[in-house]
Amino acid sequence: MQTDIGKKAAGEKAAEYIKPGMTVGLGTGSTAYYAILRIGELVRAGMEIKAVATSEQSEQLAREQQIPIIPFDKVEKIDIDIDGADEADAQLQLIKGGGGALLREKIIAVAAKEMLVVMDESKLVKQLGKFPLPVEIATFAWELTFKQLAASGANPVLRLKDNNRFVTDNGNYILDCRYQKIHNAAALEAQLNSVPGVVENGLFLHYASKLIIGYQDGTVREITRPYQGKKSF
Amino acid sequence: MQTDIGKKAAGEKAAEYIKPGMTVGLGTGSTAYYAILRIGELVRAGMEIKAVATSEQSEQLAREQQIPIIPFDKVEKIDIDIDGADEADAQLQLIKGGGGALLREKIIAVAAKEMLVVMDESKLVKQLGKFPLPVEIATFAWELTFKQLAASGANPVLRLKDNNRFVTDNGNYILDCRYQKIHNAAALEAQLNSVPGVVENGLFLHYASKLIIGYQDGTVREITRPYQGKKSF
Repeated sequence: MQTDIGKKAAGEKAAEYIKPGMTVGLGTGSTAYYAILRIGELVRAGMEIKAVATSEQSEQLAREQQIPIIPFDKVEKIDIDIDGADEADAQLQLIKGGGGALLREKIIAVAAKEMLVVMDESKLVKQLGKFPLPVEIATFAWELTFKQLAASGANPVLRLKDNNRFVTDNGNYILDCRYQKIHNAAALEAQLNSVPGVVENGLFLHYASKLIIGYQDGTVREITRPYQGKKSF
Repeated sequence: MQTDIGKKAAGEKAAEYIKPGMTVGLGTGSTAYYAILRIGELVRAGMEIKAVATSEQSEQLAREQQIPIIPFDKVEKIDIDIDGADEADAQLQLIKGGGGALLREKIIAVAAKEMLVVMDESKLVKQLGKFPLPVEIATFAWELTFKQLAASGANPVLRLKDNNRFVTDNGNYILDCRYQKIHNAAALEAQLNSVPGVVENGLFLHYASKLIIGYQDGTVREITRPYQGKKSF
């Protein structure tokens, strides 16, 4: 993987928030990669932490780095989740799922006390939606779910990989929905969640507690969500 | 299967709504069973229809009955869906999923112009919730999703079958949530849909257009939803 100064700066900054005794969620992608490398250094230097991973890929990397991975039935709490984003706005709303791991990432994010989003400056946008919104759907009668989303104006495209249908780690398909501009992300999320066949969507609206944005000059900017009490459903 | 007079009366009544040329959704369960048998008689008597099924079990039965099953990429419309329920109230709100097919049943129900719910009198309740609400969840980190639902007051129990975890046709688990009384089904559904890891829930609130309730004396009562225009998201 070619070193990207902004991504590396953001990933390594996030690792500074890890304290001994924490359980850490390890995200997926090219920026979380640098966080995992830095956490590996901390572990090998003696810091005792536990971790869970949002993908096979990150779990594999963590094991190479000697970061202790624990099974989910042993997880009592997740203190900090460190993950990337495909788009983020200044209100800490995210689009994720470009890599197809949105469901697993969201399950970890909601369970974590804090979510640090690591990203380079290119991911920060004024308005979400230019990046096609990934929507994970059941494979059963997926054509009907496609029609429901098309009728709602989602402009869905079934994600392919090597000319075959892309299948998530959970055995589902992904529709990439080209809204261009998402004006009311909360309303859109509620609408998508109400469609039978939709398993999960790539809008992460209330999860990020901090954006850590790395720039090409190696500097880092942080945007922190004002304290709003414990998040709840 | 032992003949149940109420279930048989309801299932056969529903078949009367099938007209030539229709595409019909075939539900699952002991009451839909009688509808499928009657539709089979109509087909063998010359009525031309097409059908889709909500389970392998119903598809198998339909084929035995010589009902033509079409693949979902050939479905242009579903005119009528005939399915059962575990509970229904007089506002045509349902709990489904006792058999574990809730996701497939909901995908068909939302795609259908009309949903006829066939049931015996024992399924009609004043208030939903005595029947544990089935919630289908992803297997990944299911312990975290369980905790989220437990914290929300759902009293979830992981469904087992023969001492193993029950797995749906979609490869997911089911949590049976014992609310006892569901006071605001719409709010509960929105809350459940917002939980990452929740794939689908057994609340069918806006789908049924008619309840067809069969009684032990062979009579049938119908409760029809007032016309509210085309349902939409």
